[in-house]
Amino acid sequence: MTQLQSRIEAANQAALRVFQNSRPIWFDVRPAIDALPGMTRKLILHAGPPIEWRRMCEPQRTGAICAALFEGLAGTRVEAMARIEAGDIRLAPCHEYGAVGGMAGITSASTPVAMVRDEVNETVGCSLLFQGPRGQLRDRDQYERETVRQWRWLVEVLGPVLQSAIRAKGGIDVRQLEAKALQMGDECHNRNSAGSVLLLRELLPSLVRLRVDAATLRDCVEYLAWAEQFSLCVSMAAAKAAADAAGGIAHSTIVTALARNGVDFGIRVSGLGDTWFTAPANPVDGLLFSSEWSENDTVPDMGDSSIMETVGLGGYVQVAAPVLQQFVGGSFQRAVQLSEEMRQITAGVLPDYRIPNLDFAAAPVATDIRHVVRTGIAPIIDTAIAHRKGGVIGAGQTRAPMDCFNKALVAFSARYREDP
Amino acid sequence: MTQLQSRIEAANQAALRVFQNSRPIWFDVRPAIDALPGMTRKLILHAGPPIEWRRMCEPQRTGAICAALFEGLAGTRVEAMARIEAGDIRLAPCHEYGAVGGMAGITSASTPVAMVRDEVNETVGCSLLFQGPRGQLRDRDQYERETVRQWRWLVEVLGPVLQSAIRAKGGIDVRQLEAKALQMGDECHNRNSAGSVLLLRELLPSLVRLRVDAATLRDCVEYLAWAEQFSLCVSMAAAKAAADAAGGIAHSTIVTALARNGVDFGIRVSGLGDTWFTAPANPVDGLLFSSEWSENDTVPDMGDSSIMETVGLGGYVQVAAPVLQQFVGGSFQRAVQLSEEMRQITAGVLPDYRIPNLDFAAAPVATDIRHVVRTGIAPIIDTAIAHRKGGVIGAGQTRAPMDCFNKALVAFSARYREDP
Repeated sequence: MTQLQSRIEAANQAALRVFQNSRPIWFDVRPAIDALPGMTRKLILHAGPPIEWRRMCEPQRTGAICAALFEGLAGTRVEAMARIEAGDIRLAPCHEYGAVGGMAGITSASTPVAMVRDEVNETVGCSLLFQGPRGQLRDRDQYERETVRQWRWLVEVLGPVLQSAIRAKGGIDVRQLEAKALQMGDECHNRNSAGSVLLLRELLPSLVRLRVDAATLRDCVEYLAWAEQFSLCVSMAAAKAAADAAGGIAHSTIVTALARNGVDFGIRVSGLGDTWFTAPANPVDGLLFSSEWSENDTVPDMGDSSIMETVGLGGYVQVAAPVLQQFVGGSFQRAVQLSEEMRQITAGVLPDYRIPNLDFAAAPVATDIRHVVRTGIAPIIDTAIAHRKGGVIGAGQTRAPMDCFNKALVAFSARYREDP
Repeated sequence: MTQLQSRIEAANQAALRVFQNSRPIWFDVRPAIDALPGMTRKLILHAGPPIEWRRMCEPQRTGAICAALFEGLAGTRVEAMARIEAGDIRLAPCHEYGAVGGMAGITSASTPVAMVRDEVNETVGCSLLFQGPRGQLRDRDQYERETVRQWRWLVEVLGPVLQSAIRAKGGIDVRQLEAKALQMGDECHNRNSAGSVLLLRELLPSLVRLRVDAATLRDCVEYLAWAEQFSLCVSMAAAKAAADAAGGIAHSTIVTALARNGVDFGIRVSGLGDTWFTAPANPVDGLLFSSEWSENDTVPDMGDSSIMETVGLGGYVQVAAPVLQQFVGGSFQRAVQLSEEMRQITAGVLPDYRIPNLDFAAAPVATDIRHVVRTGIAPIIDTAIAHRKGGVIGAGQTRAPMDCFNKALVAFSARYREDP
């Protein structure tokens, strides 16, 4: 083994230990302006790697305009666009502000975010709470009005109630929650049915003790009982805390972000700091929830939720959630094979995350760009499918584009070549 | 095929359809005296087939004495025993009064029972709600005091609250609930973690709307959030409704009850009506929850919960809950094999119950005593392990004793021989 190789191995083992030792505690909910270091009232965050306004996909553009209106940064859509184009309202990736956002990932100053502290690695990760409105998905204008209405309710009602409940509870151990969910058919990305209802159960004793009026309690309980993907927000914040802790380790070839903006797929690599390596996002294979929609209504792979694959969950453990094979016409055996494939591109496992369907084998974690390039096996990502005007209209799977890893490996070689 | 054989096949297909078409709705909670036809104030019901007082296992004897005291039928233990021995207080199987009871199964006049109506087959099944007290299991005297305290609370608080909530809700579809739970790592007998939390979520909107004081709401919500086996009571009542509907079909060799009283294992067969065919109950292979206990502290297989295997769940679909293999040192493959074994002794499948781990194969159902005797494969039963002084102290698996099936087949031949 050359000196460079042993340095890489040591650095990767250090990154692996960060993932293994992470102890994420959901401890608070706050408006983004109070939660994210560097957040400003004129900043709107989005999912995925950085992207220029003119190249942005429609769901993100629409989301950014709505956010500008919602925050009072503009009075009309035209004004909002003009101020964004002029740089008066700034756009930036969630990832660069300690946050992650599902789907479009639009996060503005007042957006309530779940805050998760990694008690061992001493990092904090945040994620917006938003989940689209109930039904009404077919009429896109109505969808947009409902979105704004629900956004306001999240800011004014649910955010503060959850803040009180989680503070009264004194925090929830996200790792324990996810470990249980993995034994209950979740893979913690596309399927969060168990995690969400377990989270509701954890919060419930605190919720019913809050001094809020009966109607507010009812509304919040009904929202949480309905929101089957709710725990994903908390899991994403936990994953972001761990992934950020694994970043910036010199010589490490471990991936610390997998993120998409509906146009580009971007990755970050521990030994290469905050640099993004991008390639065009792939389409998503899967099923749309209604025959009214076709592929023409969808955008390519979008959202920061692939932070779950970054920390070894989601597609990496899809055998834990064989139900998801229905979206891709797959089989239990296919899920087993995909989880085995992910073992070939990862540096180790997460002993806390055991998969009953694999006789309690531990989840593979810490994707090594060298292994990805050498084997030609790209990370598999379970993901929702977005309508090009916003909203989740399907679910399926995709792969991270190989070019991200090729580019990162070239950069890694250039960076560490003279530093043997 | 002889005429008798074709009659048996037709009868068994009819029994199978009863199981397949069952549509169980949990619609009410009432005291046993108001729920069970024929129930009296001087009657105490127990799990399993009929058994004489002197042969009863200790948990059932203790339970019957406590029930007599609780119901005011006796002032002291000595008096309670004397009145039971004199036949002044009568004992009978739950099964003979339209009910089933987990573990000892002790059900007396005031015991709140979940009532489930099979909307298609037009039968009602009931099950006690009781689940032992929290912790305190090590000190058996304290356990007994806690049991009485909790029993009182169930009668006075939880029963009436659940009654109001389920009536306000207008019923819960138990089949839908179980089908979801099977996709979330439950097999609906030994593991009900998903079912219980899903049931809590279903009840929640009605619960928080009830006009009860905040402390009562909190206590009930906390109990339901803690009681991870709660949905088993509802599932058992649903199963009893279907099993009773499948009973009494002339010429059918399908099993309509698998039940144990800690001494005897008993089965009923559709074409043989209410007759029990018994054999000594087997010990349970499994794990005890504390090293303080040994096999000497346990009783053999006990409880009516094997009504779940009677309707094709529990051990029959244990591959849906690979977590349970931990109790028996098993493996995923072993679970697959056991579910395959059960296919060899059953007449068909339940299309509503799909197992993701088996590529959505349907659950095997309708155990045919002829197949059991011919193959030598006895039904596998997932079950809890009871302390001989009461309380659940472990979990594991066992088999129904072959002799029940041998005896039933002999009786079947005798009954139908002259009726070709």
